[in-house]
Amino acid sequence: MERLFIGDLKKYYGQEVTVSGFVDNVRNLQWVQFIVLRDETGKVQITIEKSDEAMKELVEIVNELPVESTIKVSGTLMEAPKVKMGGMEIIPKTIEVTSKNLEELPFNYKDISTVNLDTRLDYRYIDLRSEKNILLFQVQSAIVRYMREYLYNNRFTEIHTPKIIGAASESGSEVFEVKYFDRKAYLAQSPQFYKQMALASGFGRVFEVAPCFRAENSNTSRHATEFTSFDVEFAYINDYNDVMNLEAEMLAYALEKVKAEYGEKIKEVYDLDVVVPKTPFPKMTLSEIYKELEEKYNYKVEDELKNDLTTEAERLCYKLAMDKFNSEFLFVVDFPAQKRAFYHMRDENGKLQGYDLIWRGVEITTGAQREHRYEEIVKNAKEKGLGKDVEFYLDFFKHGCPPHGGFAIGVDRLTMLLLGIPSVKESQFLFRGPNRIEP
Amino acid sequence: MERLFIGDLKKYYGQEVTVSGFVDNVRNLQWVQFIVLRDETGKVQITIEKSDEAMKELVEIVNELPVESTIKVSGTLMEAPKVKMGGMEIIPKTIEVTSKNLEELPFNYKDISTVNLDTRLDYRYIDLRSEKNILLFQVQSAIVRYMREYLYNNRFTEIHTPKIIGAASESGSEVFEVKYFDRKAYLAQSPQFYKQMALASGFGRVFEVAPCFRAENSNTSRHATEFTSFDVEFAYINDYNDVMNLEAEMLAYALEKVKAEYGEKIKEVYDLDVVVPKTPFPKMTLSEIYKELEEKYNYKVEDELKNDLTTEAERLCYKLAMDKFNSEFLFVVDFPAQKRAFYHMRDENGKLQGYDLIWRGVEITTGAQREHRYEEIVKNAKEKGLGKDVEFYLDFFKHGCPPHGGFAIGVDRLTMLLLGIPSVKESQFLFRGPNRIEP
Repeated sequence: MERLFIGDLKKYYGQEVTVSGFVDNVRNLQWVQFIVLRDETGKVQITIEKSDEAMKELVEIVNELPVESTIKVSGTLMEAPKVKMGGMEIIPKTIEVTSKNLEELPFNYKDISTVNLDTRLDYRYIDLRSEKNILLFQVQSAIVRYMREYLYNNRFTEIHTPKIIGAASESGSEVFEVKYFDRKAYLAQSPQFYKQMALASGFGRVFEVAPCFRAENSNTSRHATEFTSFDVEFAYINDYNDVMNLEAEMLAYALEKVKAEYGEKIKEVYDLDVVVPKTPFPKMTLSEIYKELEEKYNYKVEDELKNDLTTEAERLCYKLAMDKFNSEFLFVVDFPAQKRAFYHMRDENGKLQGYDLIWRGVEITTGAQREHRYEEIVKNAKEKGLGKDVEFYLDFFKHGCPPHGGFAIGVDRLTMLLLGIPSVKESQFLFRGPNRIEP
Repeated sequence: MERLFIGDLKKYYGQEVTVSGFVDNVRNLQWVQFIVLRDETGKVQITIEKSDEAMKELVEIVNELPVESTIKVSGTLMEAPKVKMGGMEIIPKTIEVTSKNLEELPFNYKDISTVNLDTRLDYRYIDLRSEKNILLFQVQSAIVRYMREYLYNNRFTEIHTPKIIGAASESGSEVFEVKYFDRKAYLAQSPQFYKQMALASGFGRVFEVAPCFRAENSNTSRHATEFTSFDVEFAYINDYNDVMNLEAEMLAYALEKVKAEYGEKIKEVYDLDVVVPKTPFPKMTLSEIYKELEEKYNYKVEDELKNDLTTEAERLCYKLAMDKFNSEFLFVVDFPAQKRAFYHMRDENGKLQGYDLIWRGVEITTGAQREHRYEEIVKNAKEKGLGKDVEFYLDFFKHGCPPHGGFAIGVDRLTMLLLGIPSVKESQFLFRGPNRIEP
């Protein structure tokens, strides 16, 4: 019989069902045995009356059954209002042990309060078994799914650009070197140049979801040496407001879908509400923000730090955005141009045509209109001292390239904020940092 | 006014419209100017009567307008049955030149018959402008979209596993080395170990679409050093027939959707039919195939080559599958176990529980039930001489791991076959091979 998901069982009361999963718990009492069976959609109780002659064989199987083994159970699904776990139980006809847990677990993943994070990451395949972690990656999958869906609905094309590149181009520093046959190659820090190339080639709207690599030797809760980036770029914009608007609409669409699918479960497991934002998102300039942070929350900072958001200012933006706009999201504009990448557009007064997006006090995006005019982009590159390494990129603008803009969202960081997880070390499937490339 | 896609214009006859795109062609005649405007959805004619006083300014713009520049045109959309291009034309009110083509193109991308493939790849941002190439990547985006959709509908979770790994694990050879701060790291050849880890962690069904890296110094039409792999793995299978069935259903679902969306366009541009396959796909053993290839097509090959499909046998499988089953797809089973990876399951007689899938005469997948029993996988690893590098992987099977299987499809190869493109060099957005990591 076909395997059913535990989360779907309610439809099958009184019927024969087959379920498969991990043995979450076994209670072996004098007259009865209970198995709690767990799959990726929920848990169900299996009840075996020892006095029942027909159960004799099953009783023996359960006597020898270590928790965390996997089993396949066929039997009758009964309503059982007294059973806390969904008000149902399965009276089994057969139990097949499909794999056995051979050793004690390295730690109890159900109670990690005393477990060191590094130990958890060393044994990530155990750590991931918790309800919180299973849900985390289901939600991550869903939010990416629905952001993509929004873009498909708006005629975006998904592209796959190379991660092995010939020049350490974007910044020259913080790039990993690869031994590539007889020469050196590098790992792409972002698909920035290539998604712009797609627009120069006539793809009007593109996106990519792919790994990015940063050789930063820093340990923070928000950084990793490899992470999944959700990159968007599209042509024929009027200005960078079009970019901000599209990003806001995309996020609102995806969060609404995530809330519908996982909102209740997130509330139950994380005690958190998924808030569907209203669009457009509010927008403030960097200097307005510092002014109001001082006036409202007495947050003072030296002038020379005011050309960017400090981590603390970022954090306070959550409060500011909620107090002022009742919004978890806040666009920040008017950053000084010299602090930004050479491919971000400046207007005729040198003003940056870009933005950051802050969600729940953490920056999740840098976006901008890009410089598409050949003379200007060449000038910008020169000003930053970029030479031969970016020449191939500058060529993209020689033969017609429409006005365009885009942004990137770190998928791990997005999930971290959505579920209130303290660090990307836990919101990445397998974290990669300066001291961790295993397992 | 909001930009409209040229492919959608038919709905707007008699109305004011705004379109943006590349100048595909300009004809400047005595009394009239014609612009052919191109975006990613089609082409439309812009007609400017020189005698019209109101057009004076526009006439001057067009006089100076190099092809391949980008423009934004607002005007009235008129039915024009005599115009071959969709039976319509736009009578413009404004034309804004949004970017200028500054130099002659390095080659004529509309006629590549005399252009060397390497030149095309050097200037890929020009090469991609052709109608064939734009369609190619739209179709690639669509087939990946619909394969994902099938999996979402079947409760699969998308994961993102690391590409930087600590051990050159899967085979030891053909792996790129990365300088990782003070130590060595490697680029993942596939997500195989990690997608299996997900199942050991309790994710019942997972998939990933991500780059894979192979340090193979070989130049064929089917190989690249970096390519996009569509990887699927799922638990609680009965045997490897479940894996074959899921793959066939997924491909049939996706191809049906691709045909509905792009079938006509593919016929028009590539003169090819998208054939929606019937499921289940036919299946033959390796020895049956060699027997029938000899009987039917007089294809003879030495016995020692019969432990795998030769390239020519693979090619002939297209004919065989069509003649015998009227199917473009053919599953090949019963490969000798010793030729396959150690993580493929063998039954109690040592028979491999895996398969290849041949489409239009080219292998697109290797799939299998995986070995999930700890003692067996340890034994298999030892037999292959794999040591310390795979220990972390073997640990995944110690604490309960359900029976499972999976497969991988190369996205570039799939697109190549769908559109009859001669080489993955052309079906990758930017090809990567031993001698090419640029642009």
